[in-house]
Amino acid sequence: MSYTIQPIGIVRSELSSLEAAPRQGDEGAPEAWLDLTAQVAQGLAGVLPGDELIVLTWFHLARRDVLQVHPRGRLDAPLTGVFATRSPDRPNPVGLHRVSVLEVSGQRLRVAPLEAVDGTPIVDIKPVLGPVEER
Amino acid sequence: MSYTIQPIGIVRSELSSLEAAPRQGDEGAPEAWLDLTAQVAQGLAGVLPGDELIVLTWFHLARRDVLQVHPRGRLDAPLTGVFATRSPDRPNPVGLHRVSVLEVSGQRLRVAPLEAVDGTPIVDIKPVLGPVEER
Repeated sequence: MSYTIQPIGIVRSELSSLEAAPRQGDEGAPEAWLDLTAQVAQGLAGVLPGDELIVLTWFHLARRDVLQVHPRGRLDAPLTGVFATRSPDRPNPVGLHRVSVLEVSGQRLRVAPLEAVDGTPIVDIKPVLGPVEER
Repeated sequence: MSYTIQPIGIVRSELSSLEAAPRQGDEGAPEAWLDLTAQVAQGLAGVLPGDELIVLTWFHLARRDVLQVHPRGRLDAPLTGVFATRSPDRPNPVGLHRVSVLEVSGQRLRVAPLEAVDGTPIVDIKPVLGPVEER
């Protein structure tokens, strides 16, 4: 069995390359726009500035055949299973990002912080539940 | 553009139907087993009992053509965009679950709480970062 993701939109960011992107949002990532497609725009009803969201992305530049990595790219760290790390390289390279909504403009959301590079496909957007600090 | 998810495993749970499943893990969901495929088993290296994980699933029973819902199925609640809710019905029905690891047995993880029904495909597993209470 397999399943097909149709992106709901795309990340627009000043981050143009993986080299320029921090590893996590709270490590200096900039704000970015989430440009949703017209087809899903109705799904944003109720999303407001100040909301805390979980954005799921598809790391389209990631390798899907990697099962173990040196965490944070440190070669002195022991090889670790990707499911114990936030490595973008993993069998299904879905990124998870906690962001705040700064602005809602039609089918576009301005959010921060977001470490995904320009052009990253967006899989889903969900509200944060409860008093959380998830990244 | 579209992308293909190959599930990394499957949820094994006493929850056999959507009717029996709570809406969120902390609303009385039971423990469950995450049965990973042999192909990705190496990716679990470093996952230990006591770890807090984010499990991403594919809500295979969800509707993908729904963009607005009455939150929590309450017809007296105003129609709200699915991206402002945790409705399983959404364009890419990826579920997000925060769980604790109770046991690691080969390529199987016993976790709790998990509101996904038996047979739900697993998309990804990630560690929780920082002091969090994400569900």
